[in-house]
Amino acid sequence: MRVGELSRRSGVSVATIKYYLREGLLPAGERTGPNQAAYDDGHLRRLRMIRALIDVGGLSVVATRDVLAAVDDPDLPLFQALGRASGTTTTAPDAAEEQDEAWNEGERMLAEQVDERGWQVSAENPAWATAVGVLATYVRLGDADLARQLGLYMRTMEEVARHEVAAVVDRGDRARTVEGVVVGTVLGDTLLAAVRRLAQQHCSLRLLGETPPDPEG
Amino acid sequence: MRVGELSRRSGVSVATIKYYLREGLLPAGERTGPNQAAYDDGHLRRLRMIRALIDVGGLSVVATRDVLAAVDDPDLPLFQALGRASGTTTTAPDAAEEQDEAWNEGERMLAEQVDERGWQVSAENPAWATAVGVLATYVRLGDADLARQLGLYMRTMEEVARHEVAAVVDRGDRARTVEGVVVGTVLGDTLLAAVRRLAQQHCSLRLLGETPPDPEG
Repeated sequence: MRVGELSRRSGVSVATIKYYLREGLLPAGERTGPNQAAYDDGHLRRLRMIRALIDVGGLSVVATRDVLAAVDDPDLPLFQALGRASGTTTTAPDAAEEQDEAWNEGERMLAEQVDERGWQVSAENPAWATAVGVLATYVRLGDADLARQLGLYMRTMEEVARHEVAAVVDRGDRARTVEGVVVGTVLGDTLLAAVRRLAQQHCSLRLLGETPPDPEG
Repeated sequence: MRVGELSRRSGVSVATIKYYLREGLLPAGERTGPNQAAYDDGHLRRLRMIRALIDVGGLSVVATRDVLAAVDDPDLPLFQALGRASGTTTTAPDAAEEQDEAWNEGERMLAEQVDERGWQVSAENPAWATAVGVLATYVRLGDADLARQLGLYMRTMEEVARHEVAAVVDRGDRARTVEGVVVGTVLGDTLLAAVRRLAQQHCSLRLLGETPPDPEG
């Protein structure tokens, strides 16, 4: 199909499609003339995935390109590839600025829990620094009591991850598995956060006796 | 203290402090002269919270202002206030565009699970539309199998929320509770997502036999 049809079928403007082509998010079409290229269903599918990662997953264009590069690299182990996605969804801490006493305390908290649960994870995983960054911020703000949820987060996320990994592996071929990992991990963050808000509403109603907002109000 | 000292002690530039004052994120100082104002420890604390929400929580300046307005409104029920934060961390779906068959299927999935778990939540909660948006995207991408994790997400997040609500209520006075809700909810999203990545690494090592990256590599 021509770029006009790709735009119509995906709902993405021609200008935006050309931007994604320039930035390397979308592979080039097959050249059919000096100013013309043909696109296939693979392009349409990729375009829908790009929009999902940006619009629903909240990734930046740069983060999306990094995630897709991981998808396209057949040599990269699946869940290591995801490290790239997690590292780019949050601002990476500035090493020089952040390595203070609070940072060390945050890292000690995480290392202790990782050790206790017997997790085999690498401090090279960008998610490690992200987690330490949050714990250090709790300490700096005088909210260290919030870090007490870390063990609970780890226990529940281990159960979630075990099911998630098993489910995408069940898909069979690598391309479909990688796609499941990327979409499920990035969009799953958004879904988990939303479900957590709904759970908080439900639990605060029970604990604090707060009433649900009046839909007519 | 003068604005210069506030800047030194918070690590935030004077220009940025003035921007936050103009945008209403930071309350005005006490006027002490025609071009001079005095700031106190409350300003310093608020400034640290602003930076945490933006740098670590990944909120935009506008979202941060909305969250802080909720903090400052003593009439707003605690966890309803958080709806504002969740609604602004992800792109709100365009109602006209999104109400298609996939949207309806996503909403049916969520409503069924909410009903099954007996959750008292309101479809007016912005997190409702966010959750439906993710489920609808799974359907549109042909990844509806990923939605099978919804029940697991709800069960684990109910446990997380129950502990979180109880812990912040334990803080006693409303101001400290609200602060705990805001910091713990926004930064907790980042922490949960990071812990989920680490758990995925751990579980994929066990399930797929992937080896951890070589720190020397």
